[in-house]
Amino acid sequence: MKIDNLLYKESEWLKGTGPKANTVISSRIRLARNVDGYNFFTTASPETKRKIFDDIQAAVKKCKTLKGASLLSMKEITELDRQFLVERHLMSLEHVAEPESKGLVLDDKEVVSIMINEEDHLRIQVLQSGFNLTEAWRIIDAIDNDLAERLRFAFSPRYGFLTACPTNTGTGLRGSVMLHLPALAMTNQLNSVFQAISKLGLTIRGLYGEGTEATGEFYQISNQVTLGYSETDLIDNIEKIISRIIGRENTTRASLLSKNKEEITDKVWRAMGTLRSARIITSNETITLLSTIRLGIDLAIIKEPDVKVLNELFILMQPAHLQKLEGKALSPQERDVKRAALIREKLKS
Amino acid sequence: MKIDNLLYKESEWLKGTGPKANTVISSRIRLARNVDGYNFFTTASPETKRKIFDDIQAAVKKCKTLKGASLLSMKEITELDRQFLVERHLMSLEHVAEPESKGLVLDDKEVVSIMINEEDHLRIQVLQSGFNLTEAWRIIDAIDNDLAERLRFAFSPRYGFLTACPTNTGTGLRGSVMLHLPALAMTNQLNSVFQAISKLGLTIRGLYGEGTEATGEFYQISNQVTLGYSETDLIDNIEKIISRIIGRENTTRASLLSKNKEEITDKVWRAMGTLRSARIITSNETITLLSTIRLGIDLAIIKEPDVKVLNELFILMQPAHLQKLEGKALSPQERDVKRAALIREKLKS
Repeated sequence: MKIDNLLYKESEWLKGTGPKANTVISSRIRLARNVDGYNFFTTASPETKRKIFDDIQAAVKKCKTLKGASLLSMKEITELDRQFLVERHLMSLEHVAEPESKGLVLDDKEVVSIMINEEDHLRIQVLQSGFNLTEAWRIIDAIDNDLAERLRFAFSPRYGFLTACPTNTGTGLRGSVMLHLPALAMTNQLNSVFQAISKLGLTIRGLYGEGTEATGEFYQISNQVTLGYSETDLIDNIEKIISRIIGRENTTRASLLSKNKEEITDKVWRAMGTLRSARIITSNETITLLSTIRLGIDLAIIKEPDVKVLNELFILMQPAHLQKLEGKALSPQERDVKRAALIREKLKS
Repeated sequence: MKIDNLLYKESEWLKGTGPKANTVISSRIRLARNVDGYNFFTTASPETKRKIFDDIQAAVKKCKTLKGASLLSMKEITELDRQFLVERHLMSLEHVAEPESKGLVLDDKEVVSIMINEEDHLRIQVLQSGFNLTEAWRIIDAIDNDLAERLRFAFSPRYGFLTACPTNTGTGLRGSVMLHLPALAMTNQLNSVFQAISKLGLTIRGLYGEGTEATGEFYQISNQVTLGYSETDLIDNIEKIISRIIGRENTTRASLLSKNKEEITDKVWRAMGTLRSARIITSNETITLLSTIRLGIDLAIIKEPDVKVLNELFILMQPAHLQKLEGKALSPQERDVKRAALIREKLKS
């Protein structure tokens, strides 16, 4: 696979399709797995790490569920390419540094990605556009079974799958849903929603996962607990709670539209005016403004651009994407100028 | 004169022509005069006030220099019309309330206006677009002489013209220049400029004169002292100091353009984007954004709109003007919506 080919492709996580696409960007399930008989990655010797990599590579090649997928060796691609893959939500930020013996399995639709030798030997991930954990589970479960036929996973009858960090032990499953909650944010309801969520075993993260801040009212909600429940129980629980949040967001959007139409219309058009005019713009400001326009489209305040254009911009305006578009390294200042030019071009009326 | 006819006219103070029009909006001279033999306005009886009004009215009618000018009785026009005249800089805010025995003489070019029974019996004002105190002085001096032939002004050989407030005694002259100083503001040089000015006997006021705040980097600079110097000495002093400020503003603009072109271009285009997009906008925000666009035109960052359009908007977006355009009273919220619509219409690309 040529990584550059991804540049002009729609990414699954921001396709803007799928169930409840007006409030849910994407759904994701990941499974943490380790190969039995080896140390966990953090305490493994360089030689063991290479062996793990080779074992997994051999297994992946035999899996029917991964037919056609590519295996990228992290040390054979540039750091810019690794950042690029993070921006496409195909791997974690932690997977960028120290590329030795680290790999990424990737299907060309960007639905499936498997990090090799991240915190665990395997981090299998399946992405689906919109609110669709069930389909993500169907796909990942098949891959997991396929891999389990060729690799013996570290497993305890009492605790379940063993993982480098005990918080993942058990199912090793994390289901996450990326939500867009501008109406709850505008009406200061997020705090109470988030407090309720944490009591129900879920946690909130920002756009790029653990340790990142929420921008533009995009929130990633996922299960905290992985032990003591079946995979489908965990997924059902997330789905049930998220459905309620979606309902509340939609009710609030409708009420904002009926009570504060002028203010929201003003906000949406100002966001559009700024994006269409700015000559220098940071990615944070861009996300915030695109978020407002996304709301404006959902509320039919504006008809253009198509959500597809917004999603494309969302991906392309990121630092590594911009530099790959430009074909060279850019300083943060140069990126802010390039980003503004790209946005003006894409949003031309 | 029908006040409504002024609505679609260019006002002299914002014509955008005249010397140094890129930094100087307008120049103004006013003379404070009182008719001998009557109390000052503040201590005059209602009957005296009426007599003063009648005396002045009779004198005005005979003046060749005021041929064709109209005399408006404040109590015969609506409060909205009085606010409208304040917005056109033809009279003071103080002249709006308690209209009894108050009047305004106005020529149809809006160059000359004379308030009757404001703080003094007469406040003669002459406006010129751009930096042109000399021409303003030529015109006002002729009117003053003309009036002096028909009214005996309160005058002391020792102190000069006597006025209700001792700060105006002497020449009774105040020369003011409305400056646009965005570059000095951006580079934090205004404080030092203003400190220097006060030591030289000048003061700084906002857009609408005494007690109003500066908005959009527009500053009105005028002489503090009126006693002990001849009129032409006072005017020469203002001109000399203002010329230096203009020079410094222009040097700073050039240096900003060479050193911070991208930042300024961004600021100018963002201002345009907001004005062309907003659905709700206050007059303060409008002034600030128009100020930025004015700078952008002077620096040739943008070619459109014509400065004339900016000046027109500057006048029309004010509360009383908006209400007269709409033909009815509007709440502040309604004005913000109407203002935004007017701006979008005028700035359509």
